[in-house]
Amino acid sequence: MNEELQGLINSLREFSRERDWDQFHSPKNLASALTVESAELLEHFQWLTEAQSRALSAEKRLAVGEEMADVFLYLLRLSDQLNIDLVEAAKLKLTLNAAKYPADKSRGSSKKYTEL
Amino acid sequence: MNEELQGLINSLREFSRERDWDQFHSPKNLASALTVESAELLEHFQWLTEAQSRALSAEKRLAVGEEMADVFLYLLRLSDQLNIDLVEAAKLKLTLNAAKYPADKSRGSSKKYTEL
Amino acid sequence: MNEELQGLINSLREFSRERDWDQFHSPKNLASALTVESAELLEHFQWLTEAQSRALSAEKRLAVGEEMADVFLYLLRLSDQLNIDLVEAAKLKLTLNAAKYPADKSRGSSKKYTEL
Amino acid sequence: MNEELQGLINSLREFSRERDWDQFHSPKNLASALTVESAELLEHFQWLTEAQSRALSAEKRLAVGEEMADVFLYLLRLSDQLNIDLVEAAKLKLTLNAAKYPADKSRGSSKKYTEL
Repeated sequence: MNEELQGLINSLREFSRERDWDQFHSPKNLASALTVESAELLEHFQWLTEAQSRALSAEKRLAVGEEMADVFLYLLRLSDQLNIDLVEAAKLKLTLNAAKYPADKSRGSSKKYTEL
Repeated sequence: MNEELQGLINSLREFSRERDWDQFHSPKNLASALTVESAELLEHFQWLTEAQSRALSAEKRLAVGEEMADVFLYLLRLSDQLNIDLVEAAKLKLTLNAAKYPADKSRGSSKKYTEL
Repeated sequence: MNEELQGLINSLREFSRERDWDQFHSPKNLASALTVESAELLEHFQWLTEAQSRALSAEKRLAVGEEMADVFLYLLRLSDQLNIDLVEAAKLKLTLNAAKYPADKSRGSSKKYTEL
Repeated sequence: MNEELQGLINSLREFSRERDWDQFHSPKNLASALTVESAELLEHFQWLTEAQSRALSAEKRLAVGEEMADVFLYLLRLSDQLNIDLVEAAKLKLTLNAAKYPADKSRGSSKKYTEL
């Protein structure tokens, strides 16, 4: 595992241990919390146009960064509980995606691979 | 930025450039896609008990890992579009969380910080 | 369309018209808002055990009811924008579900129909 | 409760009873399933522009209607488990929203009531 991410994972372990929160951190519950945080991130964008979302104010960008951090932390915590190396999983998924979405077939198209 | 994560971000940039997908990757759309992937992750757990979610089969764990990779990749892509350093944001959030949830007040409790 | 639901839809139309909000209420945005409200509903349950979720306090039940109302209102608003009769769609889906999940095959199982 | 919605609720009860699914239908799990279905609805819109989302093809509109039905059915099932009258809750919420978003203050603005 990436050393810096392992450092974050260790901090999360300690954080949870100190608060006796392991009892709440089942993968089921963490997946819920992850989805809730993703939606809080989405809430910042829901009424913006796409153009506005590409030009956030400094204040909004900070708030968005905090929600992204929440998503990331739950993702790391979940990866620890399930013993999944997030970076390795991401590398593998990139390879799978390249096969699912050949550049020539998917160029300029937002279709799902099942519809290509 | 963490070097390995920067490598993933660069791969995502290339992936999108080759497919002419930058037009679709507004922060608004990426935040939607991130939430959709989180929910696909959650779907694996929705009817499981917490105990079952702590003891996934090898096959299920693999499928879950793929969904986690999808969430991670969209999170990295979004961080690139918004020029946010995910690891720095996570470190900052950990510090904020430690202030919001003092260990002695939150021990063994799943209450939100606003209710402590 | 069910008369009472049509009354709610009319109120939502009027509400939006008075505030000049039709510009924000594209189906895309309403689908985001619906997901955000669903996640706010889920947040109330994320750290509860299933047993606790079956025995909410009166106060919690009220808060949950408010989130459910938000989900319902966005669903009605979206159905109006897309000209979809929600009750008819639900009746049709029930019939489809009965075919997808034959009682004898799915009894006591939480498997998805694709895995039965 | 609205008679037609009560009819749908009764069908859902029967559907679940016949399949012995009450064991899975805790409010916690139903809130997860509701969020998952909302996200499946959102998926149809995630790469569309707002304009495209206002002009769905007949085929897409049908698929979207099915997802909306899924959200509605889980919402009804949850309302039954929690003994909440969805229509009454929606009427109450409309009144609360009118107070939170005075027409003159929120006209043409997508700001949250806490920021008005």
